[in-house]
Amino acid sequence: MPWVPTSRCILITRGAELDQIAMVVKVYGEARAVCPQRVIHCLVEKGVPFELVHVELDSMEQKRPEFMEKQPFGQVPYVVDGEFELFESRAIARYYASKYADYGPSLLGRTVEERAKVEQWMDVEAMNYNPVAFSIVWNAFILPARGLARKEEKAAAAARKLEAILEVYEKQLAKSRYLAGDEFTLADLTHIPATRYVVENCDMAHVMEGKQHLKAWWDNITARPGWKKVMEFVETGANKHQP
Amino acid sequence: MPWVPTSRCILITRGAELDQIAMVVKVYGEARAVCPQRVIHCLVEKGVPFELVHVELDSMEQKRPEFMEKQPFGQVPYVVDGEFELFESRAIARYYASKYADYGPSLLGRTVEERAKVEQWMDVEAMNYNPVAFSIVWNAFILPARGLARKEEKAAAAARKLEAILEVYEKQLAKSRYLAGDEFTLADLTHIPATRYVVENCDMAHVMEGKQHLKAWWDNITARPGWKKVMEFVETGANKHQP
Repeated sequence: MPWVPTSRCILITRGAELDQIAMVVKVYGEARAVCPQRVIHCLVEKGVPFELVHVELDSMEQKRPEFMEKQPFGQVPYVVDGEFELFESRAIARYYASKYADYGPSLLGRTVEERAKVEQWMDVEAMNYNPVAFSIVWNAFILPARGLARKEEKAAAAARKLEAILEVYEKQLAKSRYLAGDEFTLADLTHIPATRYVVENCDMAHVMEGKQHLKAWWDNITARPGWKKVMEFVETGANKHQP
Repeated sequence: MPWVPTSRCILITRGAELDQIAMVVKVYGEARAVCPQRVIHCLVEKGVPFELVHVELDSMEQKRPEFMEKQPFGQVPYVVDGEFELFESRAIARYYASKYADYGPSLLGRTVEERAKVEQWMDVEAMNYNPVAFSIVWNAFILPARGLARKEEKAAAAARKLEAILEVYEKQLAKSRYLAGDEFTLADLTHIPATRYVVENCDMAHVMEGKQHLKAWWDNITARPGWKKVMEFVETGANKHQP
């Protein structure tokens, strides 16, 4: 049987075939959505087998009572891992990065100070970067995709804020290869899904022009096999990952 | 000398008076602001001595170059702890909760699963609750405090969203005494500062009516000596904490 990290491995190899199937992490979400991508990417980096259970966002499946029983805010993703259930994409990513700390890349740093720096840049992403990137993607991409007019003014205001944030990132990335230091961590990983929509779907590829460290970082983190696997999920409609 | 947690204690007791002073955590911010309150509360709960270095938000001191050298987004708070510096209030709270895990209340849980639940509710606070609470406080309190008109419509729209979120909290708090389980953690702590402004300064005390578990939780967490100490900072203008 394939390699499975942690003590769960023992449980599975001693258990029956059905147990093995039941223990695979189930991710409820949609592969093209930003927050599920964060979780999928983390699981792939850590070599955790999982199954994606498709939740149709266009038909608002995430607002149905049976979904909201598990995720009371009606948002994707949530995960079911045996008896354990969890929602909020960044919390899920932290959980697997911590649970499988010794497998694959060290996504949360190795000391309490290293983790603090990872958390600092994760919170910059969550509190500063994400609202701005979301506004750009919503007004310049999602509205038109739904047949509605782009909200040019709102998209432009958000783009100006993004420019200011990315100037800070450029300075940081001149000092260290990744946001939180010299290793790839959740601080970088959490930025990828929304940023891809910004640069590929919102006529915003120019945001990295003249920012050589930012551009090198972006090229580097999106060239990771883990991220390419996330894109495979989007492109092929695959719903299982078995490292 | 007073009790000081962790290995730092050894450094201080062996060091000179000046070293001791230099090692006290410095929190740059303003006591009445929400994000510094989160950090101050965490440090008080953990019994960490600190000094609050006042940053005058009304005169935009946080946007001055010397401040932005330390906090490149021009936001409060940041902390200086010997050689170590950190910003983002939730990241700072996680850092001290983790560094001093064995002192005072266990603010991040005791197992990786317990921490995951704390992180889940911290992310609910950061991503769902905080934007809504901030909108209420901004439109119903900060604008009038600056001599500008309340934005009634925006405040009302945010109040409706808050109501929906608090219904989820009421259900959760019917199942466990605190958001992430049976112990007070950062999941609860991070909610307090903005919620106090909402219920005390925005004519919104009614949001807890008919929600008995929410109300009991709120009364319980704001009765903590740690939170009362934060309010003392606001009321007295004190700038030092020595447990």
